[in-house]
Amino acid sequence: MFPYKSSILLNRKAHRNLYLQLCDQIIKHIKSGKLPPATRLPGTRTLANDLQIHRKTVIAAYDELIAQGWIETLPSRGTYVNRMLPIVNPADFDHENSKQKTTTISSFSFSKRPNLMYSSVSFDDSPKIQIDDGSPDHRLAPIEELSKTYRNIAKKSYHQNLFAYGSTYGNLDLRKKLVKYLNQTRGLNISLDNILITRGSQMGIYLASQLLFNKRDTVVVGNTNYLTANYTFEEAGATIAHIPVDDQGIDTNAMEALCKKTKAKAIYVTSHHHHPTTVTLSAERRMHLLQLAKQYGFAIIEDDYDYDFHYSNAPILPLASNDNYGNVIYIGGFTKIIAPAMRIGYLIAPKDFIDEASNMRRIIDRQGDMVLEKTMAQLIKAGDIQRHTSKVLKIYKSRRDLFCSLLKERLSNYFEFEVPKGGLAVWVTLNNKYNWDDVVAKAGSLKLELNPEWRRYDPNNLKHNSIRMGFASLNEEEIYKTIIILEKVCAQL
Amino acid sequence: MFPYKSSILLNRKAHRNLYLQLCDQIIKHIKSGKLPPATRLPGTRTLANDLQIHRKTVIAAYDELIAQGWIETLPSRGTYVNRMLPIVNPADFDHENSKQKTTTISSFSFSKRPNLMYSSVSFDDSPKIQIDDGSPDHRLAPIEELSKTYRNIAKKSYHQNLFAYGSTYGNLDLRKKLVKYLNQTRGLNISLDNILITRGSQMGIYLASQLLFNKRDTVVVGNTNYLTANYTFEEAGATIAHIPVDDQGIDTNAMEALCKKTKAKAIYVTSHHHHPTTVTLSAERRMHLLQLAKQYGFAIIEDDYDYDFHYSNAPILPLASNDNYGNVIYIGGFTKIIAPAMRIGYLIAPKDFIDEASNMRRIIDRQGDMVLEKTMAQLIKAGDIQRHTSKVLKIYKSRRDLFCSLLKERLSNYFEFEVPKGGLAVWVTLNNKYNWDDVVAKAGSLKLELNPEWRRYDPNNLKHNSIRMGFASLNEEEIYKTIIILEKVCAQL
Repeated sequence: MFPYKSSILLNRKAHRNLYLQLCDQIIKHIKSGKLPPATRLPGTRTLANDLQIHRKTVIAAYDELIAQGWIETLPSRGTYVNRMLPIVNPADFDHENSKQKTTTISSFSFSKRPNLMYSSVSFDDSPKIQIDDGSPDHRLAPIEELSKTYRNIAKKSYHQNLFAYGSTYGNLDLRKKLVKYLNQTRGLNISLDNILITRGSQMGIYLASQLLFNKRDTVVVGNTNYLTANYTFEEAGATIAHIPVDDQGIDTNAMEALCKKTKAKAIYVTSHHHHPTTVTLSAERRMHLLQLAKQYGFAIIEDDYDYDFHYSNAPILPLASNDNYGNVIYIGGFTKIIAPAMRIGYLIAPKDFIDEASNMRRIIDRQGDMVLEKTMAQLIKAGDIQRHTSKVLKIYKSRRDLFCSLLKERLSNYFEFEVPKGGLAVWVTLNNKYNWDDVVAKAGSLKLELNPEWRRYDPNNLKHNSIRMGFASLNEEEIYKTIIILEKVCAQL
Repeated sequence: MFPYKSSILLNRKAHRNLYLQLCDQIIKHIKSGKLPPATRLPGTRTLANDLQIHRKTVIAAYDELIAQGWIETLPSRGTYVNRMLPIVNPADFDHENSKQKTTTISSFSFSKRPNLMYSSVSFDDSPKIQIDDGSPDHRLAPIEELSKTYRNIAKKSYHQNLFAYGSTYGNLDLRKKLVKYLNQTRGLNISLDNILITRGSQMGIYLASQLLFNKRDTVVVGNTNYLTANYTFEEAGATIAHIPVDDQGIDTNAMEALCKKTKAKAIYVTSHHHHPTTVTLSAERRMHLLQLAKQYGFAIIEDDYDYDFHYSNAPILPLASNDNYGNVIYIGGFTKIIAPAMRIGYLIAPKDFIDEASNMRRIIDRQGDMVLEKTMAQLIKAGDIQRHTSKVLKIYKSRRDLFCSLLKERLSNYFEFEVPKGGLAVWVTLNNKYNWDDVVAKAGSLKLELNPEWRRYDPNNLKHNSIRMGFASLNEEEIYKTIIILEKVCAQL
């Protein structure tokens, strides 16, 4: 007979009802083959006695098992494990080992992505300074306005519909506000038809890639480029072609030469501040690129991730502001302005492309967060976004100035750089006598965390020996500490 | 000479600075070829006079244009449009027509998706009753707890890191709480390694599809199925194979027969309440399916979208609770319990699959909303989610009872159905004498909006003449109104 007493362990303190625990365990034993089909189960009084529980509990459990189809009552005969269940060999179930294996390694095959970039954000909590790729300072995020506005919006009864299913294009109010805001600040000339709210720039790049690229379509990027974009393009099946980048940005003459030989589906540009080198695409090259797009019929994916952070003069209007032929897909977001966790962005393109992007959204994640999007709309309306942008722009500018002046004063024997006209990072070249691995290792031991995967800035082996150093997320004290540590590091090189 | 006075229109009331407006327009004329390279620009005093603005404004504009590279100053000679700019034929720019065309139709090619489902949610605000596919009642969303908790969490200074970049796996606290919550309520035996936070069930289906399917891999679904899942699989390149569905759920004997002939990559099941027919997968077939998965090495994508809504007895534990060989990918979310706009869900699978899903997340949308995820963790901890679930379960059960009893009492000549044991919708079959198009049309004129795309419930032309009618989102008054309108409609058939 099956040893019910020792095989069923009930925990009165557990959250789950006792009768359900009993069910669970009987089912477990049925599935493992220890209680095979047609096994006669003990009467409710007997089992209750053995397990030292109330008879009512056993009755409830049996009722449940009957309802679920695990056991059956044959009138005047008793209760049996359902005879229709498949027969199972108990030896097939080595529970301990199986559980461990199966929760780690799947028994089906799926494709791995060896190229996908791993987030280099460290989650180690020990005190140290981390030099990032050019992230905003999340400590400056306007949390008070954001959470207060969020709460006020969520609470209003006439906003209840925000909690229902919403449009895959994004919250209407936010789209209206953004059309106005972007037309004003970016010199665009768009309407509601041209905008889709995304969850940040990365989603814009992903949507554009999935829509544009079929297998082996060619996408053109700079020979130094934002690597996550490259991975995103490859994920969509595109082949990447490189053109040089110099102090005026991507080389549009090289693009022209490429177009004469190959059919390019699209080119990816970070026109305002090239990622990673921070240079701005010159006015001439902008016009040239737009002409080429018109001539050869390729798309320009313009990733304007840090449009608002321009320190010396007014930002140069994006390519999208002069897109007379419908070639530009314009991508941006608020994550750099507000905080990385505030995932709201926009995709701007001709209507037909936006409609397809909206279809894609339906199957990727259904829609955005309507309450957050409405909150954003309210913050734009109240001028909070604009005020916050001005505020952080001043702070980031002074941080840039401090970081660059210290770097120049004290470390010019080791590092070379141009003061960036905008953006949140400096493109720093290490003197060729030295190696970044040494710098990273020594800095790490002094609690200054540089990017250990610095080679990712040079996927084409150009040997520029440069990395991006984000200054924006460091306050004044941290900037001084960084420079002091770098001095110590360099003294040991 | 270029007619500056009539070609430049400045708006003192506009948001954008006057000098920047002047820049914008000069750039526009340069780009359109009306101010060709090497054109001599008027002196600042002259232009200021012509445009009736302050000379300082013109100086600021010229400085800006010089900084951006549009114009240049030749010492002792004057200011000229940059001679290096490309020459443009003004006839190429027919602005009015171009703007309209380009904002509608793109000049590059991209793939369209004719099959993608359009959201059937109507945004027309006129008062009417809408019968949905089985959505929760967003009016019941626990908005007060949610927004209060959100605000409290966002405000705490030690939560500031929530605003920084977060993990692609999701907020750690939420993952910990969910592991416990799901182990308790679903009889799972998972650890942190097995869970990825998503933005709802749909994202889980999307991630699983992208990872599992290469071109022409076969995925098996019921011959009636949740259509959005089908589209998601096709988007990933999979080929769909159908097996029958009866009153015990999908026919696992048919699955076995299929596996003998074809290599199936995965099967998609809504085991708890089949979508659309609402039947529950029987205990026998569950065991059979798990055996087949082990034998043939395919994945089981278990979409448990409404696990918590089971009215007659305790929910049957999902297939994932007995996944001894690592075959099950378990997908669920909170959108049906809380509100469609609260996009938090989970993907449960063996560790290696979860790690790849996390990589994919990096390029799709970077991460979730950390503050919202932390809010969710807090609501679980405080028991709010569980209390809310119990509360809406009672309400939905009584709505089911009312809807079904009225439908049976008054409309049994027209509609046939089984009272669903759970879920938020009834699978209603229309008497074969009648046609849903008539019903939908007549109902629409009486302000009862049924799904005009009802044929989507029968993509394989089985002629079951059935649709889903969601009762959960209707309150008592709306249920009565619905039945009354249906009576009127049927009287006219």
